[in-house]
Amino acid sequence: MKETIGFIGLGSMGLAMATNLVKAGYKVRAWNRTAARGEPLSRLGATLVSRPEDVAEPGGLILSSLADDTALEEVIGNNEGLLRRLGQGGVHLSMSTVAPATSRRLAGGHARHGVTYLAAPVLGRPDAAAAGKLWIFVSGPAAAYERVRPVLRVLGQGDFHLGEDAGAANVAKLACNFLIASTIEALAEALTMAEKNGLARTTMADLAAGTIFNCPAYRNYGRLIAEGRYEPALFKLSLGLKDIRLVLQTADSSRTPMPLASLVHDHFLAALAKGRGDWDWTALAAEVSEDAGLPAPRPREQAG
Amino acid sequence: MKETIGFIGLGSMGLAMATNLVKAGYKVRAWNRTAARGEPLSRLGATLVSRPEDVAEPGGLILSSLADDTALEEVIGNNEGLLRRLGQGGVHLSMSTVAPATSRRLAGGHARHGVTYLAAPVLGRPDAAAAGKLWIFVSGPAAAYERVRPVLRVLGQGDFHLGEDAGAANVAKLACNFLIASTIEALAEALTMAEKNGLARTTMADLAAGTIFNCPAYRNYGRLIAEGRYEPALFKLSLGLKDIRLVLQTADSSRTPMPLASLVHDHFLAALAKGRGDWDWTALAAEVSEDAGLPAPRPREQAG
Amino acid sequence: MKETIGFIGLGSMGLAMATNLVKAGYKVRAWNRTAARGEPLSRLGATLVSRPEDVAEPGGLILSSLADDTALEEVIGNNEGLLRRLGQGGVHLSMSTVAPATSRRLAGGHARHGVTYLAAPVLGRPDAAAAGKLWIFVSGPAAAYERVRPVLRVLGQGDFHLGEDAGAANVAKLACNFLIASTIEALAEALTMAEKNGLARTTMADLAAGTIFNCPAYRNYGRLIAEGRYEPALFKLSLGLKDIRLVLQTADSSRTPMPLASLVHDHFLAALAKGRGDWDWTALAAEVSEDAGLPAPRPREQAG
Amino acid sequence: MKETIGFIGLGSMGLAMATNLVKAGYKVRAWNRTAARGEPLSRLGATLVSRPEDVAEPGGLILSSLADDTALEEVIGNNEGLLRRLGQGGVHLSMSTVAPATSRRLAGGHARHGVTYLAAPVLGRPDAAAAGKLWIFVSGPAAAYERVRPVLRVLGQGDFHLGEDAGAANVAKLACNFLIASTIEALAEALTMAEKNGLARTTMADLAAGTIFNCPAYRNYGRLIAEGRYEPALFKLSLGLKDIRLVLQTADSSRTPMPLASLVHDHFLAALAKGRGDWDWTALAAEVSEDAGLPAPRPREQAG
Repeated sequence: MKETIGFIGLGSMGLAMATNLVKAGYKVRAWNRTAARGEPLSRLGATLVSRPEDVAEPGGLILSSLADDTALEEVIGNNEGLLRRLGQGGVHLSMSTVAPATSRRLAGGHARHGVTYLAAPVLGRPDAAAAGKLWIFVSGPAAAYERVRPVLRVLGQGDFHLGEDAGAANVAKLACNFLIASTIEALAEALTMAEKNGLARTTMADLAAGTIFNCPAYRNYGRLIAEGRYEPALFKLSLGLKDIRLVLQTADSSRTPMPLASLVHDHFLAALAKGRGDWDWTALAAEVSEDAGLPAPRPREQAG
Repeated sequence: MKETIGFIGLGSMGLAMATNLVKAGYKVRAWNRTAARGEPLSRLGATLVSRPEDVAEPGGLILSSLADDTALEEVIGNNEGLLRRLGQGGVHLSMSTVAPATSRRLAGGHARHGVTYLAAPVLGRPDAAAAGKLWIFVSGPAAAYERVRPVLRVLGQGDFHLGEDAGAANVAKLACNFLIASTIEALAEALTMAEKNGLARTTMADLAAGTIFNCPAYRNYGRLIAEGRYEPALFKLSLGLKDIRLVLQTADSSRTPMPLASLVHDHFLAALAKGRGDWDWTALAAEVSEDAGLPAPRPREQAG
Repeated sequence: MKETIGFIGLGSMGLAMATNLVKAGYKVRAWNRTAARGEPLSRLGATLVSRPEDVAEPGGLILSSLADDTALEEVIGNNEGLLRRLGQGGVHLSMSTVAPATSRRLAGGHARHGVTYLAAPVLGRPDAAAAGKLWIFVSGPAAAYERVRPVLRVLGQGDFHLGEDAGAANVAKLACNFLIASTIEALAEALTMAEKNGLARTTMADLAAGTIFNCPAYRNYGRLIAEGRYEPALFKLSLGLKDIRLVLQTADSSRTPMPLASLVHDHFLAALAKGRGDWDWTALAAEVSEDAGLPAPRPREQAG
Repeated sequence: MKETIGFIGLGSMGLAMATNLVKAGYKVRAWNRTAARGEPLSRLGATLVSRPEDVAEPGGLILSSLADDTALEEVIGNNEGLLRRLGQGGVHLSMSTVAPATSRRLAGGHARHGVTYLAAPVLGRPDAAAAGKLWIFVSGPAAAYERVRPVLRVLGQGDFHLGEDAGAANVAKLACNFLIASTIEALAEALTMAEKNGLARTTMADLAAGTIFNCPAYRNYGRLIAEGRYEPALFKLSLGLKDIRLVLQTADSSRTPMPLASLVHDHFLAALAKGRGDWDWTALAAEVSEDAGLPAPRPREQAG
């Protein structure tokens, strides 16, 4: 009989992960601020509760997938009731993309209730979450990591334990998102230069992804950027900006100049200022095209 | 019996390619400014000549692999004797990394002698050239491309014909080198942020290359940058700077702002100013580390 | 008989301003976290108190000069005792460089006690404060501004009322500090290019300041940067970085990309990473020089 | 009786300078590619000639004011007839904004004919040229400088001899234009941040120019940028871009990273890509405004 899992946060990522857990035979007790989001999960057999603290049981395991640092602190970090209930032996697998400093602060607070905090941010968008193909970076105590590995195997195609420092997995996750954002910027500039010199954007994208950049990031993003397909969003630009802010904040507090992160931030910010926050984050490329005098993309009608 | 090939320029790339052609059964007549570089080739059966024009025969095929735009213009573009000798039906496969504008100018000049100019820059370093594993971008008349395909198959693992515009292949090649340089910058910043936040550089490099960036560029460069192994150079920083200058020049003349190319240029230039022009171009990462207050790398002794 | 003024914060700026007020005949009641800093002021006749709230009297005027947003919020914004005591008709002239958002938040909190908050950040370093030569930007209710004008005339050579929005004066102050930091960056690059092309730095600085840039900012900073005199600090680099962080934070929350502010931030951060936080903020120029391969400046011995 | 002066190049700067020389009593013999431009000068008593070499007399003085390096090289540098005619004791006062390397190369070529080349680029727009209020930077042999000083006094409000290196004055001039372009960028960002935070652009511009930036550059440019008055151009954006290219070229060849020059270059290039090359170079500020989501400026009708 599998363990009961408390699940907090049923956004598009959280819902997909919770669904996979239910399907894998776990008993899931879930909470979401907007309860209606949980209905599909409920139909599969999960229990929905009305307060975050109600997902926890003594010494149990909870997973969280929340929007940002503030939500994580409010719903769990400052929720004495929840932490007390979880108590000695409890484990919190915290899958949101947050600042390393937030994880470290929460780890300390959890410990005062005997709860182990594991940072476990993921790489992959909702489609990867639904397919159980996430990559998961974990940091925190090794014993707790061993305990949650069967759960991680349901959620992802691979996981990496990055040591005891609660913040380490967040550092890795932020670095990866920064690498993706940098790839978007680089592809945007390369494809724009190609276009303005008579070489088709799609040809250029395929050349790169077909030779030395034959990997998911270049294949997926290259096509989107080449075709200027910025809607519907697979990952919203406003969320990309949020993550780059965390990168710059982490860089600043560790005295690490990151001029490329600054450049990407300024391009995301320009896109937001133009009302493109709900477009896909590859729409950063529209800033590069427009600066080259090419026409601004017009929002597409979403596929019916 | 295979065609005779005239080969101009026996630098580390040219020598490797010419060697493969000889081994594949082509009769090669080669010229290099410093004749001694051709001796190994001569021992394999190639003929060395003392003037560039002596490699050509009427209606024949020549390949060139020269240091830069200036060398290409001097040795071939302005070499009336060579072009006249090659004459009607002759083909020049020009494999150097040069500006698209240079290729276009040369294509025009060649045409006045009935010679077809094909731009054919390559992706890959000398080890890939020796292994016949280059990627080759070709542009120029389709008929000439068909004629040289058997030769390209000896030199590379794949080739792409990008249309009639002589400059197109150079645009693609410059865009790829820009993408690599951008990758170096991005990895440098990501690994430095990781290091300053307690996560080992090699761990971070392996995480990226083991998940969504699982491609040669990230695997190869990630390791070099993580370990700070900048000598011996696989591709010299001064040559990387030369290529980024061509990128910026092409961008400027086509009115394409490329702020990331400017950033990479400034980092390469700083490295050159510090006397690091002979290090590998991944040493751009040393600029990022030093700006974060980490110690400057010291040149390694080269392996004996 | 002049009004009694409560003065909070006796750093180098605050002490100079409070001293001028005493000399001008105001009765001053002052508080500083480290009481000993107030002794010179006490000898001139000011009263030192042991709690911030003790500087206030009903309907009176207080001035504050505190290190940053956090200090301002702790010592005054969240100090219910102080605000209640000041009460209806009281005015707080808040001279620290803080975020516009901080001023707006405090203005709201003050209003609940009947206290008027005036943002009044200043342009000028301690020597200008001592000479009563500050420039003062004020924002908040006009009636309160009229009341404090005689005080402003003691402290500065000119003041500007920028309207009712409490944050306006902070916006103006941050913009000015950004302009100065940009001037430092621009001069650093210009003088380094001059030096590397055979023209003496001091000659170049004097040419600019003697022609179209004949104003205090270029005259003062030009000389410091030309001579590489970064110690003793007239304004610490770590404080300059703090202000640029406020600029970027204000820019980010208002969706205003400021790439030059990002550049300056990254240079300040690099200087901090190298242990130069206590140097003058013109030491940003050392980053530019070092990137050009020129030797790093060595800390000077301070004049005896 | 005053010396005869040969004058080459009657653009808006050249015509204004030549006019002042005629009015000051000099005998002027002038050439311009488009002869009609010289008519107003002819009416004042100047002689117009049909070939550049006809302006010169043995051992005489010529002034040139040409569009760029290429024009200067073609019309004078490679004009053997002109240099031979000028011959031993001749002096060429070269007032165009060109690369230091161009001046050095021309100085060498001139010397072979016994002609002294003086670089003498100027600060100031056509209105300053007309008023005899230019600032003039001179470099080259001191004796020749002494000879031309009376002429310089007619043209400008001040001149500076920067030593024997022919390129030195060009270095200084390029550095000044870079400082102005940087000022435009800085003001653009500062005023945009102000505007987006509720503070009027003109208020902000006046605050800066009325306090620590009380100098011509900030007073003049601040107002133009605040009001978005980009037409008619006082100095065309395309010419500003030309000068920044010279700055970056000089920086590159001397291994001086200038990230702020790169940033300004990219903004000018974006403006050119959008068809704004004929606007005033302060229109760089429109790039900053648009990136902040503010509406693009529309070309004004020129004053009637």
